[in-house]
Amino acid sequence: MSVPVAGPVLVVGSGLLGASIGLALRRAGVDVQLQDADPTVLAAAVERGAGTVRENGMPEPRLVVVAVPPDAAGPVMADACRFADATITDVTSVKALPLATALAHGGDARRLVGGHPLAGREISGPAAARLDLFDDRAWVVCPTEQSDPQRVQDVIDLVVTCGGVPLRMDPDDHDRAVALTSHTPQILSSLIAARLLDADPEAVTVSGQALKDMTRVAQSDPALWQAILRANAASVADVLAAIASDLDAVVTDLRGGVGVATHDVLSRGVAGRQRVPGKHGTAADAYDVVTVQVADRPGELASLFVAAGDLDVNLEDVRIDHVLGKPSGLIELSVRPEVSGRLASGLRERGFDVRA
Amino acid sequence: MSVPVAGPVLVVGSGLLGASIGLALRRAGVDVQLQDADPTVLAAAVERGAGTVRENGMPEPRLVVVAVPPDAAGPVMADACRFADATITDVTSVKALPLATALAHGGDARRLVGGHPLAGREISGPAAARLDLFDDRAWVVCPTEQSDPQRVQDVIDLVVTCGGVPLRMDPDDHDRAVALTSHTPQILSSLIAARLLDADPEAVTVSGQALKDMTRVAQSDPALWQAILRANAASVADVLAAIASDLDAVVTDLRGGVGVATHDVLSRGVAGRQRVPGKHGTAADAYDVVTVQVADRPGELASLFVAAGDLDVNLEDVRIDHVLGKPSGLIELSVRPEVSGRLASGLRERGFDVRA
Repeated sequence: MSVPVAGPVLVVGSGLLGASIGLALRRAGVDVQLQDADPTVLAAAVERGAGTVRENGMPEPRLVVVAVPPDAAGPVMADACRFADATITDVTSVKALPLATALAHGGDARRLVGGHPLAGREISGPAAARLDLFDDRAWVVCPTEQSDPQRVQDVIDLVVTCGGVPLRMDPDDHDRAVALTSHTPQILSSLIAARLLDADPEAVTVSGQALKDMTRVAQSDPALWQAILRANAASVADVLAAIASDLDAVVTDLRGGVGVATHDVLSRGVAGRQRVPGKHGTAADAYDVVTVQVADRPGELASLFVAAGDLDVNLEDVRIDHVLGKPSGLIELSVRPEVSGRLASGLRERGFDVRA
Repeated sequence: MSVPVAGPVLVVGSGLLGASIGLALRRAGVDVQLQDADPTVLAAAVERGAGTVRENGMPEPRLVVVAVPPDAAGPVMADACRFADATITDVTSVKALPLATALAHGGDARRLVGGHPLAGREISGPAAARLDLFDDRAWVVCPTEQSDPQRVQDVIDLVVTCGGVPLRMDPDDHDRAVALTSHTPQILSSLIAARLLDADPEAVTVSGQALKDMTRVAQSDPALWQAILRANAASVADVLAAIASDLDAVVTDLRGGVGVATHDVLSRGVAGRQRVPGKHGTAADAYDVVTVQVADRPGELASLFVAAGDLDVNLEDVRIDHVLGKPSGLIELSVRPEVSGRLASGLRERGFDVRA
């Protein structure tokens, strides 16, 4: 069983994640001490209510949360081991390299247990912090064989106190997982988006939802991503090299007549997509889609959702597929297959323009 | 000015697109003749009301719409030139190769004007046809220097009669455009999804919206896509080769320390993403996002959208970001920046859990 994590907790690094952890811990009544190399950032986090500035003479922390960028996390974790009783964790999105760096800097392997909350925002800094940033979010906890079990439990208590859902995983397994599921998609999104720079402006008008979906994460901050990729370079390079090999085969195949290799990649893609998790752990494609055309006016979506509610149909997902240059939109409602017929006929009875 | 297209119109190929064109033309009162190599498909299209089966002795068509797969379109277009007065168009998603094939088979260059409606469904066949499939959708019309201007106007009339928005483009420009905006994203989506086949099942649980978005189109039918890619192989191979070159540079850079090449791709990706068109021709990222946590019950979304309507705020886009293993969801509402503050405060006043 988890209990509220024992304080005081020292949060080193008071940006978005550090300040949000402070807010979440204080929500649970835990004493939070804050530190940041940048006095302006530190003051903003205090102003937000994330904790109080750590000063000499304060009680020693029972837990230190290192919330600095990935390339700085290792030495900061090692330094935090000066608090002889403290458990040390971090929140960077890569796990093996920061730990190895911390150990190389004299960190205590028994007390170092890394973590990675799967939560974030497109904006950064303490002003963007939210006390509920981690609520119901997965937060990977990465013990090693050297980890003291009680220290692992301390980090799990931190996660639960912050509202998160702990997932235990080996650091190397974690890094290979995010290389595949997060870092590789980031690079491929950037690779596609980069091609658009060379394109005729008219060409880009001939595009649909696929291009929009595939380039969304290409908006992310290059400096932050460079640091993330540097810290997980080997695992990301392994996945990208495998993709490069498939890609080369497709290019050769396209130049030579489109035979086995292209079809093979397309077919493996269909099978691989089945493994992407959907809502509540269901497969991503377990829903039927009911498409409705609505006018682009305030209240139009509302009347649609009111009708769905009246029909006692729960909407599992919603996509708005805008049409070209016209003030109207196609709404795709994802629902469980057993209710899609009822939803479609019920909406039609209410006068909605449901697509066949 | 466009007028309803002059009939009779012969639609060759009575699948999803052909039958939908038949339905749209008959909505406008145009006489439609149908043909299909498969008698079952043809009967289903007639049953749907898409037109009547073409028989000898019927009036000759003024316009022939070739709606067969890309690898069959060229010879069918050439054959349609036997109707000496008819304008000939097609609806395949590649344009140069079918035209060249038609000319090689003795087609009449003055009367051949290709087209590509940017509309489709995940399911195929005449049973899936809809009379409003093309409403407000872009439909690229690809004349050449040999095209008779009146024949081009006939195809534009067809597009407008079907409810579409004609966009004129050179066939080669069109094919380079879709290679970049549609065919390349398809391949890259398949390449990422294919990697998931090798992954530990646990690894795939550590994933978020990026993986879901980036693998969505990998679900598409491999056989259809192989035909599309075969018909546009050179243009797709050019884009993919450029991506392969960037990708190789990133892999080398990651193996060697993450320097200039990775940052360059990430930065060019940010700039390229700015060129993806959004709704109504606006840039894709011109909206503010207001995030609201709602319970996962029928009617919950409805009350949120009713409130937005009451506040007279138009929702430009909606994304449901499901949280891990819990019956609740984060709803991201995209709105014009000038109304986002009013929406957030208004929703809070109404008791909604708006994220800071």
